[in-house]
Amino acid sequence: MEWEISTELPVFYTIKTSTGLLNVDNTDLANCGVTASGVNERRLVVVDKKVNEIYGERIRSYFAYHKLKIHIVIIDGIEANKNKDALFMLLYEIEQFGISRRDEAIIGIGGGVVLDVVGLAASLYRRGVPYIRVPTTLLGIVDVSVAAKTGINYQGRRNRLGSYYPPICSLLDTTFVKTQEPIEISSGLGEILKMAVIKDSELFEILEKHGSDLLSSKFDHPIAPTIIEKSVKGMVEELQNNLWEKDLKRCVDFGHSFSPIIEMRSLSTDEPLTHGQAVTIDILLSCRISELRGLMTSSQVVNVMRVAHALGLKISYTLFKDVSLLLEALNDTTKHRGGSQNLPIPAGIGNYKFINDLTFEEICEIANKL
Amino acid sequence: MEWEISTELPVFYTIKTSTGLLNVDNTDLANCGVTASGVNERRLVVVDKKVNEIYGERIRSYFAYHKLKIHIVIIDGIEANKNKDALFMLLYEIEQFGISRRDEAIIGIGGGVVLDVVGLAASLYRRGVPYIRVPTTLLGIVDVSVAAKTGINYQGRRNRLGSYYPPICSLLDTTFVKTQEPIEISSGLGEILKMAVIKDSELFEILEKHGSDLLSSKFDHPIAPTIIEKSVKGMVEELQNNLWEKDLKRCVDFGHSFSPIIEMRSLSTDEPLTHGQAVTIDILLSCRISELRGLMTSSQVVNVMRVAHALGLKISYTLFKDVSLLLEALNDTTKHRGGSQNLPIPAGIGNYKFINDLTFEEICEIANKL
Repeated sequence: MEWEISTELPVFYTIKTSTGLLNVDNTDLANCGVTASGVNERRLVVVDKKVNEIYGERIRSYFAYHKLKIHIVIIDGIEANKNKDALFMLLYEIEQFGISRRDEAIIGIGGGVVLDVVGLAASLYRRGVPYIRVPTTLLGIVDVSVAAKTGINYQGRRNRLGSYYPPICSLLDTTFVKTQEPIEISSGLGEILKMAVIKDSELFEILEKHGSDLLSSKFDHPIAPTIIEKSVKGMVEELQNNLWEKDLKRCVDFGHSFSPIIEMRSLSTDEPLTHGQAVTIDILLSCRISELRGLMTSSQVVNVMRVAHALGLKISYTLFKDVSLLLEALNDTTKHRGGSQNLPIPAGIGNYKFINDLTFEEICEIANKL
Repeated sequence: MEWEISTELPVFYTIKTSTGLLNVDNTDLANCGVTASGVNERRLVVVDKKVNEIYGERIRSYFAYHKLKIHIVIIDGIEANKNKDALFMLLYEIEQFGISRRDEAIIGIGGGVVLDVVGLAASLYRRGVPYIRVPTTLLGIVDVSVAAKTGINYQGRRNRLGSYYPPICSLLDTTFVKTQEPIEISSGLGEILKMAVIKDSELFEILEKHGSDLLSSKFDHPIAPTIIEKSVKGMVEELQNNLWEKDLKRCVDFGHSFSPIIEMRSLSTDEPLTHGQAVTIDILLSCRISELRGLMTSSQVVNVMRVAHALGLKISYTLFKDVSLLLEALNDTTKHRGGSQNLPIPAGIGNYKFINDLTFEEICEIANKL
């Protein structure tokens, strides 16, 4: 006897820009996730520690004004805390709060660490309760909050445990960026640079022209909305038909081939990398592969380096010169991509190609150049 | 600016009966999950401790015969071990094994505890790797391995954390049942009784006629295949269009309204309940509600009790007489069903109705009768 279960899970979520989310006359956050039936006067709000120091009072006032009783859980959203302890601390709080299965969306306010931990907890509790993402970092706005991924680091591996579990809504407010440290803003710009180099030459030209101004103005710049629009649009295009990564050839993996292990390893050194820093050096490494294979000119590669530098990003890092570490990273990435390298590398600016035959010799040659 | 991501996750999995899975000439288990590309000569096999004691040698011989190198992980599959420690022990083993993302399906061999923990670990590792379910208990065959659910208990709540993540295949072999303890076989029969009372009067008649023989023969009985077929078919029908429980009115929740908390609570008493025992008393309680509301006659209720007794199941238990515990259970179930009771209760044998207005007085009256 044999039975087949064949069905489809429809998935729908919204990504929306909304300026001044914490102004009481902006109802987006208060109304998000409200259902016709059910208990709606309570919210579990998970806030990054630094964000709470700056915006905690305004968050409390906002929900009080909208007559919503909140229970705030603070997570210190540093990469080293993106682990099972933070996950289970949050799950414990959710259980204590006694959240309803459908009617009380958890609200996460913070950077990638907080939003990824909130997403994973929401996906696991009662096999899934709704949640809302409010990114307060540029990286959170252009990357984390567009995707459906959740995760924690495990055994020294970045995002080794997680799920595909999108929020019901991501609310993007770039005014949060002005309270970020420059190094964090640069980190977000690293992901934007990724999108520009791999699939949007216009975006690259914008970064070329306005890169250092964007950084010095803390993203309070007339071109900022265009950059958000182009970055998010690029991500949405890639995710729409491949949300669960059935296709392991993903151009948005550009910058994420060698960097995950090196980023994790850097955390225990005296020169830890931000995510965007790690991604950027991976971008430059991949550009060097393209150069070696005649897909980019040397001046194009130098140009990418120049823009990265203007965005406040590192263009070199010791661990990226360690050939055995690069090989370990490539090996793990190959496992993650179903047994093939599936390396996206630029073909000029704004285009890409996948390669599956990067050799040891090439890695040695590139490591020398970095 | 606003973007909408709207897509669908196609889900497909197979449930297949296969007698003598561990006979070397049965290739079902060896061939399951083999993909055209990728690494296929290794298997991570997670085996229940008791199953390993009885079948460990045969499992090793089987895979050796088929030239598959296996790494066996043992889990003592008792309900008290269905927790985060078992989950993370297994995740650690998966990481050490260095499993490929798509080509090395994890094989779980055991009862519900092992299969649920394996399923959850598989869903979390790299945001999902494939796995195969080989149930060795009657409960695993008719219930756990048909559904897509994974889970662990948390904070005294049954399956409070988990995911919807079906195996690529479930292989059902009833010959495993003959090495089960009678109390465990009865537990599986409890779930079959659930299906019979709520939606299959023919199945109920079969249980009425052959119940005690099925138990004494340890399911080695000419009617056994019919029972498996009807039970699995019933589950498949209910899951096909509601795999993610978008609809919180589920007739297969029958027997699972009051029992989850009471089953968990019983584990720390000197008279712990098996899952099927807990489900059965919940069935009887729900039948009493139907009787009170004129949906079942007293003789029908007594008949269900008689069949339950013949199947070796308890028909009464102290904690089910504790009104405050029943209320706590109903309260949690209501949260789980999106704010409504959504209680499936029988309307005669083989039919059901949902109610949303069970009162405190009714609970008191029924608790007295139990």
